Amino acid sequence: MSRAVTVGPLPGSRKAYRGDLRTPVREIELTTGQVVERYDTSGPYTQTDYVPDLQKGLPRRGRTRNHPTQLLAARAGEVTAEMAYVAAREHLPAELVRDEVAAGRAVIPANVNHPEAEPMIIGKRFLVKVNANIGTSAVTSSPAEEVEKMVWATRWGADTVMDLSTGPRIHETREWILRNSPVPIGTVPIYQALERVGGDPTALTWDVYRDVVIEQCEQGVDYLTVHAGVRMEYVPLTVGRKTGIVSRGGSILAAWCLAHHRENFLYTHFAELCEVLRTYDVTFSLGDGLRPGSVYDANDDAQLAELRTLGELTRVAKQHGVQTMIEGPGHVPMDKIAENVRLQQEWCDEAPFYTLGPLATDVAPGYDHITSAIGAAMIAWHGTAMLCYVTPKEHLGLPDRDDVKAGVIAYKIAAHAADVAKGHPGAQAQDDQLSDARFEFRWADQFALALDPETAQAFHDETLPAAPAKTAHFCSMCGPKFCSMRISHDLRANAEARTAEAGMAEAGMAAKSAEFRAGGAQIYLPVVNQ
Amino acid sequence: MSRAVTVGPLPGSRKAYRGDLRTPVREIELTTGQVVERYDTSGPYTQTDYVPDLQKGLPRRGRTRNHPTQLLAARAGEVTAEMAYVAAREHLPAELVRDEVAAGRAVIPANVNHPEAEPMIIGKRFLVKVNANIGTSAVTSSPAEEVEKMVWATRWGADTVMDLSTGPRIHETREWILRNSPVPIGTVPIYQALERVGGDPTALTWDVYRDVVIEQCEQGVDYLTVHAGVRMEYVPLTVGRKTGIVSRGGSILAAWCLAHHRENFLYTHFAELCEVLRTYDVTFSLGDGLRPGSVYDANDDAQLAELRTLGELTRVAKQHGVQTMIEGPGHVPMDKIAENVRLQQEWCDEAPFYTLGPLATDVAPGYDHITSAIGAAMIAWHGTAMLCYVTPKEHLGLPDRDDVKAGVIAYKIAAHAADVAKGHPGAQAQDDQLSDARFEFRWADQFALALDPETAQAFHDETLPAAPAKTAHFCSMCGPKFCSMRISHDLRANAEARTAEAGMAEAGMAAKSAEFRAGGAQIYLPVVNQ
Repeated sequence: MSRAVTVGPLPGSRKAYRGDLRTPVREIELTTGQVVERYDTSGPYTQTDYVPDLQKGLPRRGRTRNHPTQLLAARAGEVTAEMAYVAAREHLPAELVRDEVAAGRAVIPANVNHPEAEPMIIGKRFLVKVNANIGTSAVTSSPAEEVEKMVWATRWGADTVMDLSTGPRIHETREWILRNSPVPIGTVPIYQALERVGGDPTALTWDVYRDVVIEQCEQGVDYLTVHAGVRMEYVPLTVGRKTGIVSRGGSILAAWCLAHHRENFLYTHFAELCEVLRTYDVTFSLGDGLRPGSVYDANDDAQLAELRTLGELTRVAKQHGVQTMIEGPGHVPMDKIAENVRLQQEWCDEAPFYTLGPLATDVAPGYDHITSAIGAAMIAWHGTAMLCYVTPKEHLGLPDRDDVKAGVIAYKIAAHAADVAKGHPGAQAQDDQLSDARFEFRWADQFALALDPETAQAFHDETLPAAPAKTAHFCSMCGPKFCSMRISHDLRANAEARTAEAGMAEAGMAAKSAEFRAGGAQIYLPVVNQ
Repeated sequence: MSRAVTVGPLPGSRKAYRGDLRTPVREIELTTGQVVERYDTSGPYTQTDYVPDLQKGLPRRGRTRNHPTQLLAARAGEVTAEMAYVAAREHLPAELVRDEVAAGRAVIPANVNHPEAEPMIIGKRFLVKVNANIGTSAVTSSPAEEVEKMVWATRWGADTVMDLSTGPRIHETREWILRNSPVPIGTVPIYQALERVGGDPTALTWDVYRDVVIEQCEQGVDYLTVHAGVRMEYVPLTVGRKTGIVSRGGSILAAWCLAHHRENFLYTHFAELCEVLRTYDVTFSLGDGLRPGSVYDANDDAQLAELRTLGELTRVAKQHGVQTMIEGPGHVPMDKIAENVRLQQEWCDEAPFYTLGPLATDVAPGYDHITSAIGAAMIAWHGTAMLCYVTPKEHLGLPDRDDVKAGVIAYKIAAHAADVAKGHPGAQAQDDQLSDARFEFRWADQFALALDPETAQAFHDETLPAAPAKTAHFCSMCGPKFCSMRISHDLRANAEARTAEAGMAEAGMAAKSAEFRAGGAQIYLPVVNQ
């Protein structure tokens, strides 16, 4: 396979590590001399000096365990190394991290066999996270491409990556991704189980599935999507739907249940599954196999019946000390978004919600990163802890590198917009830093502070490519003759001058007017009510 | 100038005209034989046979007037030709149109001197509309490019177009756009007034401005952005802002007020302005010159003080029989969006709200069509009647043709998502038609029903270019071996078979299981609670 992955810092940024725990940040030195930082998910690949060796993999972090899982440690009052690390990353108290994990309101997906990953936390009290899906399929792509997609996705801010490979070489692809990933990796084990039985859903057995799960846990997968809530009795509820069952995992298990007239083996063996996951501290991502695939099907009986069962399973998992999050829709019109969060939080004891979009409309294939960023921003504001991205290729094909980036950026926008709306500490400071740069015509700083510095600068250069335009006190929107921001500056400067000259208060209004006109029509700021 | 504009129907669509009023629709004939239609803004350019003559302009519609304005006609109980036309276009009763216009809750921007335009309505009881801004600037672009941008924007669904030209040839550019535009055209007359006084804001006078307004009304402009709410006393409220005054019109008038120590001449001469607009039935778009330019400044005193004044001016305009809508922000975090609509509706007597975005975050220059589509969808759901698009080039440069399309499509998504969330009659049917096509693997229909058929098909073809893939019962996501939608089909087929064979109820469960396994593991749908 090719060993080529993208390396080096983003334009205007440099990688740095903070404190004793060496938590990673993207550091931006502004032209004002101020240094600001951003949460960083990109691993060592964005260091200036890093030479990746994909064969060897990333450096490994040591792990010590006094308790099998983060959940059990937190309940025992322990602040683990991982908790301390994520607290430092998020600038929040370690005790808050511990308490949220202990209550099951947050998870730290960190398989003991994935020491390459930098710990991170998923919970509504923390920064909203973004997952990027990658993976080979039966009709296209290779392991080499997928490793680069993982590096690429984390470069733009993906907090976790799911390897959804379905074709041959599932194990090999996953191994390459895990050993080289700085972020937690999730999978859907039923895909590999299905490959193992020759693609026939009815040939699946608990034993095959369990073996696949053990293999993936051994390999280091951090969280597993498990469709244990697709109970046989719910499947008929999907018959009247517009788009049936759209989850691959959900439909595999529905087919199995109905062919055998038996309850979903993931449901009946759930306690055994908990024991396996606890051994490695792997986190459950309880899959919504009956999620709606169209706005027509949103919040219907099938979806909500499964959600209630996911709540029941959450309680079982927690009894076993296994960290758990809950997957959510899908396709949901805006007026039904809040209800999704309310019911999930109520029925699943506030376990972290991890939603796919949702798409707020079905009418725009080719633009579903946008239709879903709308829903994602709203649902995250209401309390979703992690958003699964959707790329422009959704419903149409497999995402390439550009699509991965488009999806990640759209979702970083949605996640950050939610952080701002929630009043998350430090979130709006990022907007303010960029707005300050904008108001002060610091173009280079605007680019560096942007979620995507490359695109911001490229768009600016299209119209005004010359270097002087980077320091010009105007832009191509108004042109050099007239600039609203420049007028605001004059206005502010005059207000400040006025304050300094408070003794002038007795001067007549007409005199002042003449004075300012004479001074080139700069502006004066009396509060005059007329 | 070049005469080249884009002509011909969208893929899978054809232009049609309905009924005696010949209201335009985009007609889509599905592979099922069903014919569906979409609201259409593209004018004759999307006819198969249309040969544009930009010199001659579009065909003109006759106008008869019993009252000076639509508002005065509606108040007198008259259903004008324009009201009947928009009612037919929107499949709503003409009396509803009349009543909403009479109450000032909707406007029909239709200058008597713009007979080329197809009447449309802006109000919260109707489809959410989208405006696209175009226009030459001091540093780039030509009239020829702007005409094509207008045709291009309406091709993708722009309901109105604003010509924001600021450089030389303002009059000429506008003339070309007006004579060839099938949609209402809006302008900001202060830009031309400023050109006329050599670019010096302090040299502006009411006389110069009035003459420009009369010229534009004579030419056929349908609505005018007027920043009459930028009162002198509000300007100091912007001094403590993060980004000052970001509206060009707002800053021009602020500069004028402060240089002269006099109240905004648009405010003091507002009644005279009403008389001019009434003569031509031109609609006010009361500009928010003090809109926030950053989430930091959202909903601040300056913005809200101006909004209260816009309410006062709305009442003056209505007394003069002039149709009026209100412009809104700008940059607003999600948690402050609903309040914008609530206050605007309350203070401005439910006059239609026309918002720019708003951007839900400032951190993503290069992607502000997305940051703002999030805010736009939400604010439209809460009651905004028209959305002013934002392109990917916002804050960075002037939009080219691709940017115009990206902006229009992002905003059609936002507008439609809001129509769906509002439960607007017929809106979700569009989603349902596409979802049906998706579930039934009718790929050609999915493309034709998409907001952008070209992109949808191109993305599909990237992965599966061969013609047979267009009828294949799978896609590149899962590949041919396993398809969740196909399983859902099998499931539904079996459910239907079961209903037909109700007499089989006595058959034993085990027997059925064997039967279905033997039948290739197709699926059976008992409601079994175990």
